[in-house]
Amino acid sequence: MSESRPVLALSGGVGGAKLALGLYRILPPDTLTIVANTGDDFEHLGLSISPDIDTLLYTLSGQSNAELGWGRQDETWTFMGALEKLGGETWFRLGDGDLATHVERTRRLAAGESLSAITDDFRRRFGIAVRLLPMSDDKVRTRLDTDRGKLDFQDYFVRRRCEPRVRRLEFDGSETARPHPDFIAALADPRLHAVVICPSNPFISIDPILSIPGLREALRLCQAPVVAVSPIIGGKAVKGPTAKMMEELGLPVDAASVGCHYRDFLDLYIADETDPDTAARLDLPTLLAPTLMATLQDREALARTVLAAADRIRR
Amino acid sequence: MSESRPVLALSGGVGGAKLALGLYRILPPDTLTIVANTGDDFEHLGLSISPDIDTLLYTLSGQSNAELGWGRQDETWTFMGALEKLGGETWFRLGDGDLATHVERTRRLAAGESLSAITDDFRRRFGIAVRLLPMSDDKVRTRLDTDRGKLDFQDYFVRRRCEPRVRRLEFDGSETARPHPDFIAALADPRLHAVVICPSNPFISIDPILSIPGLREALRLCQAPVVAVSPIIGGKAVKGPTAKMMEELGLPVDAASVGCHYRDFLDLYIADETDPDTAARLDLPTLLAPTLMATLQDREALARTVLAAADRIRR
Repeated sequence: MSESRPVLALSGGVGGAKLALGLYRILPPDTLTIVANTGDDFEHLGLSISPDIDTLLYTLSGQSNAELGWGRQDETWTFMGALEKLGGETWFRLGDGDLATHVERTRRLAAGESLSAITDDFRRRFGIAVRLLPMSDDKVRTRLDTDRGKLDFQDYFVRRRCEPRVRRLEFDGSETARPHPDFIAALADPRLHAVVICPSNPFISIDPILSIPGLREALRLCQAPVVAVSPIIGGKAVKGPTAKMMEELGLPVDAASVGCHYRDFLDLYIADETDPDTAARLDLPTLLAPTLMATLQDREALARTVLAAADRIRR
Repeated sequence: MSESRPVLALSGGVGGAKLALGLYRILPPDTLTIVANTGDDFEHLGLSISPDIDTLLYTLSGQSNAELGWGRQDETWTFMGALEKLGGETWFRLGDGDLATHVERTRRLAAGESLSAITDDFRRRFGIAVRLLPMSDDKVRTRLDTDRGKLDFQDYFVRRRCEPRVRRLEFDGSETARPHPDFIAALADPRLHAVVICPSNPFISIDPILSIPGLREALRLCQAPVVAVSPIIGGKAVKGPTAKMMEELGLPVDAASVGCHYRDFLDLYIADETDPDTAARLDLPTLLAPTLMATLQDREALARTVLAAADRIRR
């Protein structure tokens, strides 16, 4: 019964959350720990916003907005309309329901609670049975060195729609950030079944997690297999700027590049079956599988593929 | 053309705002200055909320919620529903559109702008042509000594629905608060036509304004007539706890009590025509008039009555 053993998943927002949802649906409750990237977190309009945590909360609870591809379902936009009339900043779209998450998080942070304690309470109130952890309770902020200067992540990502060319990424605060203790405990658990790197953007969703001191080393030393799923299918990103960034960073725009990015700790790379040349370009065990997750069934099937593949690996 | 001379109105929330709207509609633009009570202001969920200023903004711009009697028209409540599911505090109802006012005000206060500068900009963005001033840029907070202990204003007013019995009121911060300079300038203007005390609750809407050092004296010395309109009609408050508070404070529950409350600076008291015995109980010029403002026409008619009465008074 390998599936009753604990599983640890590292995830960014939308793409990663799809596989996280698949894992959540096929694993017994309390088996799964999901570690969320917080490099995207920022303060806006006086509110503390954690986009990847929120995407995971909304996705795992079945309350994500399928039409938009981000935010909450049954959302309204009265706040945004009123803010615009007051001359407020509206480049970051905040739905009325989404706003409750930010206002309440901000209030509780100001009252001295940790991001992880708040996230755990929110997770429970959303009716989600997995453990959902921010990678750290310390601030790590992704900044991009671009042809338009050094930009904060959301300035680059949302306000400028990823248009500037990226030269380099920095994770401010990572030098002194400590991983969440439960994250380290999960990695050290001798019963751990697998570490799953979800199909998120490696540079802006997974690298901030890996930038925390000791993390890459902990992944190398972990006794459980580490399995990553490619976010690149047929030379394109399913969503977001992954492919564009790879090109700007001078990397071949293909699935193999992402596997290569993780090669110091990775045991198995899962690429899409439409990318059969991935294995030849990687000095790593590679599995081809259908990785596009259009439906809920796709998510569950990919989660099963990942765990079954991990079963066949002994470190 | 007395109506082109400046008029100064002191107002609280809903009741006062009705007469303020009547004055706004009959006076030439730039003639009217409205001073809003800020004793009700409070911090809630990390937001700086100024209920009386907001009621004036929404009322004067024609965007108040007629069905509710407070808040904004065409309001949605998605935020509140989501906040409740997160276990947040929901006793103070914040509509999605209303929230924009609080979030943007809070952001701008934190950035170092004054409440009056923000209010003036909001007023302009709401398309309101009068000058709308907070009574002070300094914090004054109404607190109530009650049979349930000392309570912050909104705790008493909203959370406990005015149920505790009031013994005494305090205006924290008033000792050191300075009136807004334009408020003092308006009072000292030799062309001033009238000072209008709107039909607001005298204890919680007008007294905080009067608690600012020098204010009662300035009203006594002002060369223009000071005219107050009764918020009590037929021994009852049109809205809110005015009558209940009068009883608890040991005052006769009638229109005359309110006139008496202002007697040190008042030149004329306007009571409702259904309260003909008011004059007999007051050592003050008293005018009886229809004061219930059910319609927009009522508001304009009462505003005309007030200004015409002021015309007949020479201090």
